[in-house]
Amino acid sequence: VEDWRDGEDWGKIPAADASDEHPMEREFHAWLASRLPASARVRVGVGDDAAILRWLEAQDVVVTTDAVTDQVDFRLPEIEPRQAGHKALGVNLSDLAAMAATPVAALVSLVLPRAGAGSRSAFDLAVELYEGMLPLAERFNLDIVGGDTNSWDGPLVISVTVIGRTTARGPLRRRGARVGDALLVTGSLGGSILGRHLQVTPRVVEALRLHENYELHAGIDISDGLALDASRLAEASGCGAALRLGSIPISPDAERLAASTGRTPVEHALGDGEDFELLFAAPREAAEAMVRDQSLGVSITKIGVVVERPGLWQFTDEDELHPLEPSGYEH
Amino acid sequence: VEDWRDGEDWGKIPAADASDEHPMEREFHAWLASRLPASARVRVGVGDDAAILRWLEAQDVVVTTDAVTDQVDFRLPEIEPRQAGHKALGVNLSDLAAMAATPVAALVSLVLPRAGAGSRSAFDLAVELYEGMLPLAERFNLDIVGGDTNSWDGPLVISVTVIGRTTARGPLRRRGARVGDALLVTGSLGGSILGRHLQVTPRVVEALRLHENYELHAGIDISDGLALDASRLAEASGCGAALRLGSIPISPDAERLAASTGRTPVEHALGDGEDFELLFAAPREAAEAMVRDQSLGVSITKIGVVVERPGLWQFTDEDELHPLEPSGYEH
Repeated sequence: VEDWRDGEDWGKIPAADASDEHPMEREFHAWLASRLPASARVRVGVGDDAAILRWLEAQDVVVTTDAVTDQVDFRLPEIEPRQAGHKALGVNLSDLAAMAATPVAALVSLVLPRAGAGSRSAFDLAVELYEGMLPLAERFNLDIVGGDTNSWDGPLVISVTVIGRTTARGPLRRRGARVGDALLVTGSLGGSILGRHLQVTPRVVEALRLHENYELHAGIDISDGLALDASRLAEASGCGAALRLGSIPISPDAERLAASTGRTPVEHALGDGEDFELLFAAPREAAEAMVRDQSLGVSITKIGVVVERPGLWQFTDEDELHPLEPSGYEH
Repeated sequence: VEDWRDGEDWGKIPAADASDEHPMEREFHAWLASRLPASARVRVGVGDDAAILRWLEAQDVVVTTDAVTDQVDFRLPEIEPRQAGHKALGVNLSDLAAMAATPVAALVSLVLPRAGAGSRSAFDLAVELYEGMLPLAERFNLDIVGGDTNSWDGPLVISVTVIGRTTARGPLRRRGARVGDALLVTGSLGGSILGRHLQVTPRVVEALRLHENYELHAGIDISDGLALDASRLAEASGCGAALRLGSIPISPDAERLAASTGRTPVEHALGDGEDFELLFAAPREAAEAMVRDQSLGVSITKIGVVVERPGLWQFTDEDELHPLEPSGYEH
């Protein structure tokens, strides 16, 4: 810890905005200003006290923030820093997708280990984190408009805020599911810890396309496991969720993982987190049309229905409802 | 460090959004949802995948983010956690003030030490941080609309993003100062490390009032010391800044500090950071009117002029320009 309270350091700038304190951070911001692509949407980008986004219509502003940290969300020595950058932005875009909002901009707050990581300096680490974010930003037409860069003696923290706008259809909420709605998921679930959790593919395009073409009642991204997130969507909607376990699309990762954990693949699909797929509630007819359609490039599978009785349920072979623990599995 | 990669932990949710993982964080979000005041501007607040702000006009969106951390921006054992919360939000509001933007909303990302702080649990710490932010939010008519709560084995990180809107006068930028403009500051400077740096009073109201009533050409908040921030404003405007050291309003803290550091009060006023006052460039007539006006509740002082020659300068007794080091002082 830099002892800025020492008498001899009084003259030093006490780091409010440590971005401006150290030559490394100054150099990094110069790099950043030259690296970030220009954008007509951005009236003021990096290099002033705040960024300004042109907002040409009275469209609601959608905002979400998520921090990822070394030792909790990844282990920096075991991955490429680009993967951490990708994940930090990806999980935020996944939240935006869950609202069926269009990405506009992101702000990035870095708290860097002063000594860098491995053989990389703090500067190189910061560059690599951005090099992990920038392709994702480009892919989803998002402008990174600035941020804050600090360094300290603790582990890496990446805090990202993403700003989007609602479409003409309005936002998709967790609430809004109705009794009789079908529950659908994109992709396949479980076992992301084998590596997929670092390769978040936020379902932004899928959410916008489905929201535009079909009647959707509610949506959530699956970040904490299907069981828990289905419970949340149901609870927010004042209903219950009943899943047909045999219909749940199982990721090959869940199969692989099950071979070593003694649990079943479906337990992993229900309980593992960080799939970053989407769970939707939609009227039965819309759901059938979506499942027939399958033009998204990612599968859409009906996995259950919204029921009146609050809670999380599974269908038995006799089509009766048995409780399903939101922790994710039931033997 | 929670060893979620251990085989026996496979079933655990790998914390993408650790906010949802632990009972503490669930409990905290319930507390937060009940504690945050309702607001007509907020269409969706805490409790969905993202927040939604009603944006009723095509007003540009101003965004800024700043993280503060234990051990760099404060020492948690030596302060009240409310002070850390206040500072985290205050420094962001100061950036918004520097753009002469109206505050709308804030998002807060907390990375909490798992064990809490001192005798406080992580839950109590999080509550106290918010109790430090909420009065400031209320005072500046800002809605806290959500965030992300994580815990880990590292020190406290508070990353705040503030969203505002431009007024009919547009934003105030760092660039825009013209040769011949007067340079003015609010309040008095130096010695904030004696405690004032924790009591940030963001000059939001002052900036908006001045921007509405007078012609301002450029502005910046003084976070890294007058000398450095004046250099930045000048550089962004393609000019130089010449200060009259005898005119700089010296904080009583700078006087007190000088007694023990062997430096002069004006050196502290120039070089210390975290004053969070505003520095403006304005045409001479507007500047004179502002200085005569003094109806803000905080003093406004003319401290220099914008000059053609790039760099930072001080006037000698003979009204000549001598270089002034941006590091903050010159003997």
